[in-house]
Amino acid sequence: MSPKPEQYDVVVLGGGPTGENLADRAKAAGLSTVLVESQLIGGECSYWACMPSKALLRPWLALAHARALPGTREAVTGELDAAAVLARRDEFTWHWHDDSQVEWLRSTGIDLVRGHGRLAGERSVLVDGERLLTARHAVAVCTGTRAALPHVPGLAEAHPWTSRDATSAAKVPGRLAVVGGGVVAVEMATAWQGLGSRVTLLVRGGGVLDRMEPFAGELVLAGLTAAGVDVRLDTEVTRLARHGGEVTLTLGDGGTVLADEVLYATGRVPRTEDIGLETVGLEPGSWLDVDDSCLVRAVEGGWLYAAGDVNHRALLTHQGKYQARITGAAIAARAAGTAVDTSRWGPHAASADTVGAPQVVFTEPEAASVGLSLAEAERAGLRVRAVDQEIGNVAGASLYGDDYRGRARMVVDLDRDVIVGVTFVGPAVAELLHSATVAVVGEVPIARLWHAVPAYPTISEVWLRLLESLRG
Amino acid sequence: MSPKPEQYDVVVLGGGPTGENLADRAKAAGLSTVLVESQLIGGECSYWACMPSKALLRPWLALAHARALPGTREAVTGELDAAAVLARRDEFTWHWHDDSQVEWLRSTGIDLVRGHGRLAGERSVLVDGERLLTARHAVAVCTGTRAALPHVPGLAEAHPWTSRDATSAAKVPGRLAVVGGGVVAVEMATAWQGLGSRVTLLVRGGGVLDRMEPFAGELVLAGLTAAGVDVRLDTEVTRLARHGGEVTLTLGDGGTVLADEVLYATGRVPRTEDIGLETVGLEPGSWLDVDDSCLVRAVEGGWLYAAGDVNHRALLTHQGKYQARITGAAIAARAAGTAVDTSRWGPHAASADTVGAPQVVFTEPEAASVGLSLAEAERAGLRVRAVDQEIGNVAGASLYGDDYRGRARMVVDLDRDVIVGVTFVGPAVAELLHSATVAVVGEVPIARLWHAVPAYPTISEVWLRLLESLRG
Repeated sequence: MSPKPEQYDVVVLGGGPTGENLADRAKAAGLSTVLVESQLIGGECSYWACMPSKALLRPWLALAHARALPGTREAVTGELDAAAVLARRDEFTWHWHDDSQVEWLRSTGIDLVRGHGRLAGERSVLVDGERLLTARHAVAVCTGTRAALPHVPGLAEAHPWTSRDATSAAKVPGRLAVVGGGVVAVEMATAWQGLGSRVTLLVRGGGVLDRMEPFAGELVLAGLTAAGVDVRLDTEVTRLARHGGEVTLTLGDGGTVLADEVLYATGRVPRTEDIGLETVGLEPGSWLDVDDSCLVRAVEGGWLYAAGDVNHRALLTHQGKYQARITGAAIAARAAGTAVDTSRWGPHAASADTVGAPQVVFTEPEAASVGLSLAEAERAGLRVRAVDQEIGNVAGASLYGDDYRGRARMVVDLDRDVIVGVTFVGPAVAELLHSATVAVVGEVPIARLWHAVPAYPTISEVWLRLLESLRG
Repeated sequence: MSPKPEQYDVVVLGGGPTGENLADRAKAAGLSTVLVESQLIGGECSYWACMPSKALLRPWLALAHARALPGTREAVTGELDAAAVLARRDEFTWHWHDDSQVEWLRSTGIDLVRGHGRLAGERSVLVDGERLLTARHAVAVCTGTRAALPHVPGLAEAHPWTSRDATSAAKVPGRLAVVGGGVVAVEMATAWQGLGSRVTLLVRGGGVLDRMEPFAGELVLAGLTAAGVDVRLDTEVTRLARHGGEVTLTLGDGGTVLADEVLYATGRVPRTEDIGLETVGLEPGSWLDVDDSCLVRAVEGGWLYAAGDVNHRALLTHQGKYQARITGAAIAARAAGTAVDTSRWGPHAASADTVGAPQVVFTEPEAASVGLSLAEAERAGLRVRAVDQEIGNVAGASLYGDDYRGRARMVVDLDRDVIVGVTFVGPAVAELLHSATVAVVGEVPIARLWHAVPAYPTISEVWLRLLESLRG
C-alpha cells in the first residue's frame, strides 16, 4: 500500500546552503515548502567544508602575517596552540549539531522531513520509502557532491581521510600525506602543516590549482614549501598499505612515503546515485545539466530543478546560494504566472556562474579569482589582452608585510572594453576580490575604471598599476 | 637685472605625489616639464603622512588581529617591539632622503629645480628670486597643505608636535596628548598607544571622524578606548605650559592633563601664503578654487592649474594623484589642440572627487568610506535610502577574529537605482572598500549587483546582507 501523498508547492531535496536558501526564497514567495535531508541541516559547508576549513586556516594566516613584520615578529614568541584552534573549529561547526539551523528553518515556516529522499516519478519524492511528498510546482535537487576516491590498491583498507575527515579531525596527525592538487588539497596541506603535522603533498600533475592562472598555483606551491610542506609534483600513488597506525604509500617511481593519515582530495562526484533519478529518466550518479534558471534540461514539464554543486555549473557555496536565490525566484514567478526573465543578467538567470563566479583559496598566499582566466577567455574565442603586476611593488602591500610576494592579472575583452577576468594572488587579497567581481559582473568600462581610485596606501592600488599596464 | 627666462611647456610647483604624477603625465605626453620643490621630492605622503603613519600602524593592527584568535593569542606572548617598528618606518621614509625619487624623476626626463618657487605673473615662476621659469602651456600649483595651529596661549612655547613630528618621531613619549578628532588624531593616537605611549585624546566636539557616517567615529572611539587611550570628548584646551620635559594642558573645565609631548591635529591650511599668488590676482594663503580639470577658475587665459590638496576638492593622496593624471592629460590635450572632454566621468574631469572619493582610516577597527554619507546625500537633495548591517554577523567576519565588531552602510539613490555611498567599519575592511568604489563610480545598477556574488566565507559577504536589507 503506497503512502498517502503530502502535497506541497515545492519539495527541496537536500538541506545544505543551496537547499536552505532555495526553500527560504520559495517560502518567502508564499509557496508551501518542504525540505528533505538525511544528514545535518547546513550541509557540507557548515560542518565539513567552508566553515571548519577556514576556522582551521585563519589562525595560521594571522600568525604568518604577524610574523612578516619587524616589531610584531618579536612579540610572537610562542607557537600556534593547535588544541585551541581545534576547539574554535568545533564551535564554528556547532559540534556537528544542527539545532540552530533547524530552529531557523522552523522560524521560516518551511517543513522539515528527516530521511533519505528519492524521486518517485514526476513531481514526487519518497522519503525512506514511507512518506510521499508531492510538489504542485517544483522539486529542486540540491544534494551536492561527495569526495571521489580513485581505484588504487589498498586505498579502502588504508582508511583515507576525505575532505570530511580533514575538516573534522580531533587530533593533529604527526605525519599527513595529502593526495591531490586542487583547493581542498592545498588548503588542508596549509592548515595541518600550520597545526603541527609534517605534511607531504603528492600531486599527480606538474602543479596545483590548474583551473586558475598558472601563477596562482606557482605562488601557492612556493608558500607551501616555505611553510615546510614536502611537495612532490608529477607523483602518482600506486598502492597503499596500512599497518596499525602507519600508512605506507608507494609511488610511481617505486619510492615510498610514510604517514599517520592520508587525505585523498582527488575530486568530487555528484550525490545522485540513490535519489531516484531513474524514475524520471535520468542516469543515477550523473551531474544534472540545467539551464540558467537551474531547470533540468532533460526532464519535460518544467518541474525539476537542480541547484548548487549537483548541477556542476560552479562548485562553490556562494554560487550555490546564488543559484538558490535565482531558482527560488524563478519557481515563484512560474508558479504565480508572472514574467520570467532568463536573459543574461536577468533576475531569473544565474549568469554569473559561467562568466563571473569568484573563488578564494585561503592558503598563504591567498589565491583569488573571478571570471575567466586568460586561457579560458582565449578558448571562448574572445579577443583579449592580459596584463600582470607584481603586487609587492604596491606601497600598500609592502606596508602590509615585509617581502610581500604576490601577483595580479587582469584579462580585458578588447572588443567590449571590459574586464572578463581578474586573479589576485598574495597575502590578504581575499577581500580585494569583490572589487573585481563588481567590475566583471557590472561590465564597467575600462575608461570608467580609471575614475575608481583605490585608497592609498592599500593593496587595492594594484588596480591602478594594472590599468597603467593596459594603457602602456 | 632680471634673470634670463628658462622656457618650458609646463612648470609644476611642488614635488609631492600630485606634482610628481602631473609632471610625469605632461612629460609622457611630450611636453617639456620642470618641477620646482624646496623640500624633499615625494612630499608629505612619503615622509610625514601616509607612508610613515601606516608603517607605524600596520604592526599594531597585525598584532591585534593575531590576539583576536584562540590558538594564535597564545603564541603572542611578547609585546610590540617599538624600536623595530620605528626602524622599519625609517626605511619606508628612506631615512628622509629623496635620492630614489630624484633618480626616478631624472629617469623620466623631467627637470628638477630645487628652491622656493613663486608665481611671477602670467605663466612665470621665479625660484629663490634667481631663476625665472616660464611656461608655454601651463603652470600647475601642487603645493599641498600644512598643519593649522589654533591660537591657544602657550601653544608655540609648548613646542607641539604636528603631523610631521607624529610620523617622524624617533622616540616613544611616555605620555602623549593628542588634540583633534580627525583622521590624523585617531590614527596617531592608535599608533602611539600601540607603541607604548599612554595617550590622552582631547576632542573639542562630541565625537571623531565627523565627516563620515556617525557609527564610524563611534566604533573607532570604542576601539581607542579598548586599546587604553584616555578619550575626552567635548574638551577644549585653553592653555598650555611646558616646563622642561613636561607639558601641562589646561582644559575648559579647569582640569589639567600632563604629557611629555602634545600633538596638535586640528586641521590643515593650504601652502599658498608665499607662492606669489598676489602676482596673478589671487589671495595669498587661500585655497585655489578649480574646475573639474583643475584649472583655477579666477585666473584668465587657461594656464594656471592647481591639483592635489591645495584645491581643497578632496584632501587625499590618491585623489591628488588622480587629479594629477587628469590635469596632466587635460594640459596635454589643450597643448596639442585635441579634444578636451570635461563632461562627467570624461577623461579630463576629476568627477570622482565629489561623488566617489574613497578614504580609509587605518585604526582598529578600520573605517573606510566612498562617495556620500547619508547626511551628505540628503543635503545634496537626493532621494535616498540607507541600509545598515552588522558586519560581525557575516560568517567571514566571525572567522576573521572573535568578537568581530563592525558595521556597514549603503546609501542608495532611489531615482537612479545605484549606490551613491558606502561605509565599512571593522577590522580588515580596508581592501573591501574598492568593491564599493567600483560600484559607486561604475554606477552599477542594484539589479546587477545581485549577480556580483561575494566569495564565501569572506567579510565581503556583507554586500549580500546589505542587498537583502534593501529588498526587505
